[in-house]
Amino acid sequence: MKYFEDIAVGERASLGHHTFTAEEIKSFAAQFDPQPFHMDEAAAAASPYGALMASGWHTIALWMRHAMRYRQAEDEAARARGEPLAELGPSPGFRDLKWLKPVYVGDTITFASEVVELRPSKSRPKWGLMFSRNTGTNQAGDLVISFIGSALVERRPGG
Amino acid sequence: MKYFEDIAVGERASLGHHTFTAEEIKSFAAQFDPQPFHMDEAAAAASPYGALMASGWHTIALWMRHAMRYRQAEDEAARARGEPLAELGPSPGFRDLKWLKPVYVGDTITFASEVVELRPSKSRPKWGLMFSRNTGTNQAGDLVISFIGSALVERRPGG
Repeated sequence: MKYFEDIAVGERASLGHHTFTAEEIKSFAAQFDPQPFHMDEAAAAASPYGALMASGWHTIALWMRHAMRYRQAEDEAARARGEPLAELGPSPGFRDLKWLKPVYVGDTITFASEVVELRPSKSRPKWGLMFSRNTGTNQAGDLVISFIGSALVERRPGG
Repeated sequence: MKYFEDIAVGERASLGHHTFTAEEIKSFAAQFDPQPFHMDEAAAAASPYGALMASGWHTIALWMRHAMRYRQAEDEAARARGEPLAELGPSPGFRDLKWLKPVYVGDTITFASEVVELRPSKSRPKWGLMFSRNTGTNQAGDLVISFIGSALVERRPGG
């Protein structure tokens, strides 16, 4: 992670993509969102969605996986260059999550994150607050998920 | 699901509870949130959290599992009484998710949902919009997660 002072509003990262399979859609749903249109092709075909679709909670969990892998690869590259790494603190939460389109079997979702706001934490001088607009977009270019995430990012020591 | 017209602001449902194990915390994290303090006891002990803690995305996914199981049990009971069931439509999303406290191994989180706002959908006369304050509370009575969920609930035909 870069230090808070080195991040700019408008910075955008493409976090990678994922193609959803029927098996993983059903497996996630069985664990966390056991609704028929996430678990059974025939029930989904008879539903308003018309075909098996991923739980929205599955899509957002995969956004997180891609964001973390991206962050870890960035950190490794910075470490290899001998650069100091800022600490990424806990996320206080997020807001305005929208599930905009269904995600069907075979859909490829590309995940991204764009910094939309930066402000120092008033109560915790070690940290800055970074807000990002986080998205998933399908192969047709349609946004399927969007939310405003927040994270604490370490400020430059003595900065 | 009850029809939209039969739901009142202030209605509260206790959705059940879950005790988090180290194995499931690590398994979820390996899939969706691969950070050291969610995956490894020693790394977690050295982190600001001091011990292995669940991914916030894991906690929210378990909220969803309990909400769906509660809903399905309610529907079965209504069906057994011969009552008509309203359709629960897709969720447009949610807002103001807050991760308020860490969830550690052995913590028991009780999930709940309280209706906070009801309004007919202007664009889709079949549906009403229901907003709920959804929570998870640990065994000490501390809120660990909170968010405002939304769902489309079928209106009474001809109502």
